Amino acid sequence: MIQTVKANTMRTRIITIGDEILIGQIIDTNAAWIAESVREAGGDLIGKATVGDENEAIRKAIIQGFEDAEVLLLTGGLGPTRDDITKKAIAEFYGVGFVFSQETHDHIAKLFERFGRPMMESHRAQCFMPQNAVLLTNKMGSAPGMWFEQDGKVLVSMPGVPFEMKYLMEKEVIPRLKQTFETHPIVYRTILTAGKGESQISEQLTDFEDTIPEGLKLAYLPSLGKVRLRLTAIRGNAEEQIQLLQQKGDELRALLGTDVFGEGLSSLEETLGALLIVKGLRMGTAESCTGGYIAHLMTLTPGASRYFEGSFITYSNRLKENMLGVSPDTLKKFGAVSAETVREMLNGLLENAGVDVGIAVSGIMGPDGGTPEKPVGTVWIAIGNRENPKVLQLSLGKDRSRNIEYTANKAINELRLFILELAS
Amino acid sequence: MIQTVKANTMRTRIITIGDEILIGQIIDTNAAWIAESVREAGGDLIGKATVGDENEAIRKAIIQGFEDAEVLLLTGGLGPTRDDITKKAIAEFYGVGFVFSQETHDHIAKLFERFGRPMMESHRAQCFMPQNAVLLTNKMGSAPGMWFEQDGKVLVSMPGVPFEMKYLMEKEVIPRLKQTFETHPIVYRTILTAGKGESQISEQLTDFEDTIPEGLKLAYLPSLGKVRLRLTAIRGNAEEQIQLLQQKGDELRALLGTDVFGEGLSSLEETLGALLIVKGLRMGTAESCTGGYIAHLMTLTPGASRYFEGSFITYSNRLKENMLGVSPDTLKKFGAVSAETVREMLNGLLENAGVDVGIAVSGIMGPDGGTPEKPVGTVWIAIGNRENPKVLQLSLGKDRSRNIEYTANKAINELRLFILELAS
Repeated sequence: MIQTVKANTMRTRIITIGDEILIGQIIDTNAAWIAESVREAGGDLIGKATVGDENEAIRKAIIQGFEDAEVLLLTGGLGPTRDDITKKAIAEFYGVGFVFSQETHDHIAKLFERFGRPMMESHRAQCFMPQNAVLLTNKMGSAPGMWFEQDGKVLVSMPGVPFEMKYLMEKEVIPRLKQTFETHPIVYRTILTAGKGESQISEQLTDFEDTIPEGLKLAYLPSLGKVRLRLTAIRGNAEEQIQLLQQKGDELRALLGTDVFGEGLSSLEETLGALLIVKGLRMGTAESCTGGYIAHLMTLTPGASRYFEGSFITYSNRLKENMLGVSPDTLKKFGAVSAETVREMLNGLLENAGVDVGIAVSGIMGPDGGTPEKPVGTVWIAIGNRENPKVLQLSLGKDRSRNIEYTANKAINELRLFILELAS
Repeated sequence: MIQTVKANTMRTRIITIGDEILIGQIIDTNAAWIAESVREAGGDLIGKATVGDENEAIRKAIIQGFEDAEVLLLTGGLGPTRDDITKKAIAEFYGVGFVFSQETHDHIAKLFERFGRPMMESHRAQCFMPQNAVLLTNKMGSAPGMWFEQDGKVLVSMPGVPFEMKYLMEKEVIPRLKQTFETHPIVYRTILTAGKGESQISEQLTDFEDTIPEGLKLAYLPSLGKVRLRLTAIRGNAEEQIQLLQQKGDELRALLGTDVFGEGLSSLEETLGALLIVKGLRMGTAESCTGGYIAHLMTLTPGASRYFEGSFITYSNRLKENMLGVSPDTLKKFGAVSAETVREMLNGLLENAGVDVGIAVSGIMGPDGGTPEKPVGTVWIAIGNRENPKVLQLSLGKDRSRNIEYTANKAINELRLFILELAS
């Protein structure tokens, strides 16, 4: 799947505003989302900056940003509380005053009526807008977006709440940017792998990398248990670029075989879900140490009920016996974290939930709870069906949330590979 | 809990390097973490910037960064693959060449021996270092951190992999920064609330805000179902600041009552966990629409086995009947998303898992699957014990992951309030 996007004449900078983001109390998920959609809209993202809730810092970021960018996208600092000052900084930058927006007032009033709550004094202040602002209707919240255009340059200010910002970007900002700027196409292709590390894949691709022509760039984007490979065409006309990506991308997929689980933005769990639908199989999980995280991942995808039946989260040994029928002897002799226990957990799951395939996990996620024989990071996984269960062991580190994430990705990928083999 | 941190003389900028972060394929979680620990170490964070994997962009960011900062913390671009070029950009900035580091070579060789894998050619390139770099041992990965000091200014380069960066920050970078710079204390206090929105709390605090003296600043940090309130002392000496935060923070807590669940970095699920331990209660969950996410949150905290027993994730109606004993008549008459069903789910959970208190949820998370009577976003929650179950309904939006997150926070907070009432 080759993704064609436009770029190069709409140089864009993102400015994220907020003490909470600057000092690290909130993770800036907005910037990544905006960057992706700017690129898709044909923008050339040249930088991102974060500043605190300070008039002077915001004004300076706007001035510096416009030095080399045509478009500045600001998020944050438009809420109803007193620490929000973005609007003032923008008005000062353009040297304009404020006007009362009846439209915004009516919108907020209607919003509050719908929720059966009274409109508050703090919301009235939100209705005063810089004189030169074009207001962008925000159906998801009370503060409208603002569009400023001067001397061929555009500044957009949006609320920091992610779903409000996303709504405004999709419905208002991106369509207006496309109207305002001319853009040229560039092309990339992202190939997704699971099960191998960055170095392993890099070594596997050494010869391939020597065959990559100058107009193509390969980037490795590793995460826990997964590596994304992004091929970007950086030269040539659109037709040549598409052809090059088609050819080299297909070569790369052929080299990596079933390590590749998809392309673009698809997720490992979506891929497993699609496979289950195709094969007409239903799945479930029996989780101890992952505590429901695998079930959570499998049900994040809309329509998961077509293949996901349910899970037994057996954190205690008692529930491993009662819910899954793990034998007390097994638990006593081999322990809860053992090949034998996960095998019996998988059996119990397949039987009691009536599913075709499943995942069972038990481990010591840390940071404490290890023994010399079974140190923190010891995890046992069983996947498969009644006829052909597969059991494997992981030796991970001491970071609890990292261990949970890695184990879930590993287990989901193993079940994917298992079902792929069923096919042949 | 008042947190005292140092600040003001160690002006710090974070520079995140990587095409993948610039174009939004990866969310920058590192920057938030670094910002928090710089603040705790007494640094004054004045800005963050993100640039792509481009020599010129990195060099320019370093030059601009040093215009007003004493410390630049760089992450990313040190891995074994070919798209990493941070090291070259730094060497060019300082005008130095590269030397081979036998120490790094031996470290990587040992690392690979431990994992039983051969050392690869791509790792050998990692052993060449800028001449003026002080190497920081990285026990979590192959690329060492690098410390550069010149004219009283410090540049630190770290790998982008989060747990490697965190290890280097904690073990090497922060201790060295504390030795190198003199810092002054500033003080803040973060009070955590759940169950009310930003506007509701803001309205509740209108009179209180008028009593806040000039030397104190109040910020609202909302997230799904939670609002953090941060009081920062910005003037006066340390003693005055601590006294002021003590007084106004306590006033604020008194005004908000049980809406406050904690201070500082504690989480809602940790707070519930601590309450369960204190009361000697064990809990479990029966989840349909949240698909195990509540169980996941409750087991993310180390030591969760002291209060968390397990969960039934009954995504299908069949499992609601088989695992939880929900009556087929109830499902037929009222539907899976109803007060009656979640009440029976809670009963089944309490009985079959043998827990003292529990959470049961069923809803339509979207984006599809709604009906005129039960639109997307309809969620029923039951919490409590056998004697006193509490049932409530939510009417949420159409964003699936947002609905899951909000529902989980709401349910956990309701169980917290329930247990608080048990006490009295």
